[in-house]
Amino acid sequence: MIIVTKHGVTQDELDHIRERVESLGLRTHVSQGEHRTVIGCVGDETRLEGVSLLSIPGVDTVHPVMRPYKLASLDFAAEPTRIPLGGVQVGGEEIVVIAGPCSVEGRDMLEATAKAAKAAGAHALRGGAFKPRTSPYSFRGLGEEGLEILKDVRAVTGLPIVTEVMDTRQVDLVASYADMLQIGARNMQNYNLLTEVGRLRRPVLLKRGMSATVEDLLLAAEYVMSQGNPNVILCERGIRTFGTATRNTFDLAAIPVLKRETHLPVIADPSHAGGRRDLVAPLSYAAIAAGADGLIVEVHPEPETATSDGDQSLDFEEFEALMASLGTFAAAAGRTLNG
Amino acid sequence: MIIVTKHGVTQDELDHIRERVESLGLRTHVSQGEHRTVIGCVGDETRLEGVSLLSIPGVDTVHPVMRPYKLASLDFAAEPTRIPLGGVQVGGEEIVVIAGPCSVEGRDMLEATAKAAKAAGAHALRGGAFKPRTSPYSFRGLGEEGLEILKDVRAVTGLPIVTEVMDTRQVDLVASYADMLQIGARNMQNYNLLTEVGRLRRPVLLKRGMSATVEDLLLAAEYVMSQGNPNVILCERGIRTFGTATRNTFDLAAIPVLKRETHLPVIADPSHAGGRRDLVAPLSYAAIAAGADGLIVEVHPEPETATSDGDQSLDFEEFEALMASLGTFAAAAGRTLNG
Amino acid sequence: MIIVTKHGVTQDELDHIRERVESLGLRTHVSQGEHRTVIGCVGDETRLEGVSLLSIPGVDTVHPVMRPYKLASLDFAAEPTRIPLGGVQVGGEEIVVIAGPCSVEGRDMLEATAKAAKAAGAHALRGGAFKPRTSPYSFRGLGEEGLEILKDVRAVTGLPIVTEVMDTRQVDLVASYADMLQIGARNMQNYNLLTEVGRLRRPVLLKRGMSATVEDLLLAAEYVMSQGNPNVILCERGIRTFGTATRNTFDLAAIPVLKRETHLPVIADPSHAGGRRDLVAPLSYAAIAAGADGLIVEVHPEPETATSDGDQSLDFEEFEALMASLGTFAAAAGRTLNG
Amino acid sequence: MIIVTKHGVTQDELDHIRERVESLGLRTHVSQGEHRTVIGCVGDETRLEGVSLLSIPGVDTVHPVMRPYKLASLDFAAEPTRIPLGGVQVGGEEIVVIAGPCSVEGRDMLEATAKAAKAAGAHALRGGAFKPRTSPYSFRGLGEEGLEILKDVRAVTGLPIVTEVMDTRQVDLVASYADMLQIGARNMQNYNLLTEVGRLRRPVLLKRGMSATVEDLLLAAEYVMSQGNPNVILCERGIRTFGTATRNTFDLAAIPVLKRETHLPVIADPSHAGGRRDLVAPLSYAAIAAGADGLIVEVHPEPETATSDGDQSLDFEEFEALMASLGTFAAAAGRTLNG
Repeated sequence: MIIVTKHGVTQDELDHIRERVESLGLRTHVSQGEHRTVIGCVGDETRLEGVSLLSIPGVDTVHPVMRPYKLASLDFAAEPTRIPLGGVQVGGEEIVVIAGPCSVEGRDMLEATAKAAKAAGAHALRGGAFKPRTSPYSFRGLGEEGLEILKDVRAVTGLPIVTEVMDTRQVDLVASYADMLQIGARNMQNYNLLTEVGRLRRPVLLKRGMSATVEDLLLAAEYVMSQGNPNVILCERGIRTFGTATRNTFDLAAIPVLKRETHLPVIADPSHAGGRRDLVAPLSYAAIAAGADGLIVEVHPEPETATSDGDQSLDFEEFEALMASLGTFAAAAGRTLNG
Repeated sequence: MIIVTKHGVTQDELDHIRERVESLGLRTHVSQGEHRTVIGCVGDETRLEGVSLLSIPGVDTVHPVMRPYKLASLDFAAEPTRIPLGGVQVGGEEIVVIAGPCSVEGRDMLEATAKAAKAAGAHALRGGAFKPRTSPYSFRGLGEEGLEILKDVRAVTGLPIVTEVMDTRQVDLVASYADMLQIGARNMQNYNLLTEVGRLRRPVLLKRGMSATVEDLLLAAEYVMSQGNPNVILCERGIRTFGTATRNTFDLAAIPVLKRETHLPVIADPSHAGGRRDLVAPLSYAAIAAGADGLIVEVHPEPETATSDGDQSLDFEEFEALMASLGTFAAAAGRTLNG
Repeated sequence: MIIVTKHGVTQDELDHIRERVESLGLRTHVSQGEHRTVIGCVGDETRLEGVSLLSIPGVDTVHPVMRPYKLASLDFAAEPTRIPLGGVQVGGEEIVVIAGPCSVEGRDMLEATAKAAKAAGAHALRGGAFKPRTSPYSFRGLGEEGLEILKDVRAVTGLPIVTEVMDTRQVDLVASYADMLQIGARNMQNYNLLTEVGRLRRPVLLKRGMSATVEDLLLAAEYVMSQGNPNVILCERGIRTFGTATRNTFDLAAIPVLKRETHLPVIADPSHAGGRRDLVAPLSYAAIAAGADGLIVEVHPEPETATSDGDQSLDFEEFEALMASLGTFAAAAGRTLNG
Repeated sequence: MIIVTKHGVTQDELDHIRERVESLGLRTHVSQGEHRTVIGCVGDETRLEGVSLLSIPGVDTVHPVMRPYKLASLDFAAEPTRIPLGGVQVGGEEIVVIAGPCSVEGRDMLEATAKAAKAAGAHALRGGAFKPRTSPYSFRGLGEEGLEILKDVRAVTGLPIVTEVMDTRQVDLVASYADMLQIGARNMQNYNLLTEVGRLRRPVLLKRGMSATVEDLLLAAEYVMSQGNPNVILCERGIRTFGTATRNTFDLAAIPVLKRETHLPVIADPSHAGGRRDLVAPLSYAAIAAGADGLIVEVHPEPETATSDGDQSLDFEEFEALMASLGTFAAAAGRTLNG
């Protein structure tokens, strides 16, 4: 941590700042500039986490030197983390595609979707049993019945299941069905939920919050990892900006930025990012081109009748076309798809 | 709902759009413009909630006519809602001030703060026992011990308690101590938590999420209200924008906008909005001038040693000065303070 | 400037970084932390302006110590700057109100507006002769004819004139009519225009750009001042965020932040910030409460027929009511209005 | 335009709204819903441009039916526009790459860069003679001398020149040198400048403003086109959001969105979007994958000594590597590169 003091800081104030920092177990190092005095804090910067340095008289600004996350940091692991999902590894050479409806609406529609997704080359099945909805009057999912349907369809198709958990009380229940637990964007900073999924070893798909910085996302992953669960997959799904042409603003650059900051796999959700069917393919191509390890894509037998997110869901034919064209982009990026 | 169709829409597409809308129980009304055909949907618009109208071939854009919230809407209640908190009513003539530390750090500091706050004219005591923290390595609150301390200090000072609940599993516990339950910004769209506090009748202080629109905030209130709990207080606490001079961007205009949309009380949190001690006073004055019903302000015996949010906490003297100057702004706004 | 080096930086890289900084005339000061090495750069930080420090091998992050503006900084002037406008001083004890239509539409409407504004207590008349419009098909102002009308109306009412200049070629023309030159939000970073108005001594009303940070705004003021014109008034008029309830998001906190950074006067534009007539009054009260030195308000004889910005213009009665109620807020803030 | 009236609108208000709309030459069409009355306005919607419909008593919200741009709209031109630049066509099958330094710093560096760029496969040379800079103390370009150098280097290498024009007074001068005129992000809404470049037939590279929506960008293009110049190339270069990991937030989805709205070519600027050398390649790949027609990339002989934007400039080797790997992405997208 570097502390820049105010113009005209007094010696007493300087002494007090140093005392305060040293009382927390760090050493200080004063550098006298022409206009400003700077105090370097040497030692374990996490001890300054949450400390109100700006409240100390004479302090002007404070600049952290270290990243606030550790386990998620690239410094922590020499090799990229690979997380098994069915027969494939997320973060490996192969691009992993998770496909399925926004909500599990019934057994038939899910089985049909899973079969079509598998036939087109998808590696896993998504589908929400518990659904976060902006309006209390919208359909909120089939709940445990939806989980049962997911399990049945896994038995039929062999596709592993990715499904959302929204409530600390449901973690064990959902984990007893799911191969991968999804934490939705609105829960990315639900710290108790992160802590609960951190107790398990089940892989966690962590979606970026709408107003989360890249650092916030990595700190959310750190929550899960600090409880002992190293199996976190990060997902860029768009952020909220002034833009109105798309549902969210797909922060594509976050993909290569994350790849330079963390060893965790990074996938993209082109469905939520754009919010429009016609954007799913170009956003998917771009994500792979930028280095994403995979995609999570909404697919529905008949998007216009979907109970949720139909406007951004592909039908079977569109999904097949997407998968057919994705391979050349994967190859251009030095990856494989259904290798 | 108004559906604008694409340039060159066919009669078959028009028929199909009308069929789809009518099958959901609404009537349709077609208006042929020079360039575009518009279909008005007459009836209960909530039946179209979550329906994927944009997925229907021929549809270009869709414009809702009704507000998506009802119970929270000004149409629903003729009179402003007044919510009792100790001896005062939030939403009444008097400006209500809730003050206290970010976190309950111990009995002595809380009692000292409560006494100072009360002496300066505060109406209620805030203090976190369960703390949402961006980093897993930060102090996360004293938990139930913190709740006990809050209860003890209420017994001593008579100040009602406002404290945060973060987890569906803690709702009954926190409600057994608190006079008002706070839902934090990061949980504003934690729908299960909203549902749980909606089962109670205990007043709920609902803080606006960092990327929540005014409509999102009202829909979150609607979640609580639709479960049967009408006692919701809305809190503007700043949103996330490109600005870097303040911790968040205080969306002051949201206060009068909310007042024109809802009958619920609206308060402001100048501490989180600005993130700087020196901004607490001007933001407080402005909030009252713009029509806020109250304030929630962070106060700490010694801000520079606070375990959290010290940079934005007032010390006792500063809080006393704030309260001393607030009265004239309240009067200018046609309100009273400790009247 | 403080340079934080990468984990594993080599001695050669460190030497090269120091050489590069020293070749620009600054001294360096190396501080060896446990995990990172930090290089302090001592001397005139403006010499590093625009230098690509992040491109030097081994550099991780760079933190400026000094503010990038000087003349606009509070360090530069001990006293608040006061700028005369007619018989009043912007930045003095009195709250200054500039009122008038968005566009000069004709002589009669302008004279009527000016008389009504003056009667209600306004200090100056605004009105656009050259109008920036988002669409090329909108009315773009009367041009020089509009300036003539402004001059005539000044002769009749005695109100000084504030009008916008959009083009470097028009600076001398507009300055020959206007008492204060307005630089619009879309031109806040039109550097050649800033340079041209900097050549004059005519006061400049500089509106904050929609995506300008507080620092960007002060750097724009610095452009004008560095040419020799010290008479700059800053104007907060809302920024662009994800919010949709208002035309822009009024960044109220920017007012007290600016007051702590600069000696220049700061006013607010409640009309553009909210974009709604019914928000003009609460935003005006709040701006004054937060320490603004004045307001610029759109007033029109018949807002619904205005050629531009009618939705946010007050009619005469509404403006009179605003002025009647503003005085108590000014007094609460320790200021006067038509004192 | 569709006008939704307020709950409880009176017959007199309805009559007045209709009269007002009809007086502007449109027909009205009233639709009585259960809760709201809706008035459809049939006819030339541009006549309502800038009309203050929300100011009319009884009006609640207003929804445009038509796009506000015409010449730039896909409806206007059946075929994609192709704009010649040297021997290639922007908007044709081939991906067009414009490369060069941020600023023209001298003859030698420019010639070296141009030769390296050409050898690697670039189609045109960029380089600023007039530079917009946030700080008045930064290097602002060589001016006309820079234009002379660009001309000389074109003579040597044959690469056409793309350079920025910042001031209405410089349009003819810059146009006498440049093959393509660049309008920078900060001038995207400098309407007089757009009008001036619209008088010419020289191709215009229009960069998206930092807070411009896709619609704003198309309206800026409409300004140029409505003056008679159809040769506009749009450029996505990142927008301003809360994100801090990159200089701007690259709005990748704007590329396919624009392709569905306009016939104009769309290119990307990966240098400004990311602001980091190591992001130029992944952002370039992604832009091509998403359907961009080309790239504009900053290249410098020695980025760490660049007078501007060195942190985001590639050196010759890096640019060569980028071009070498770009071809496979172009092929995957069904395009060619130096085909």
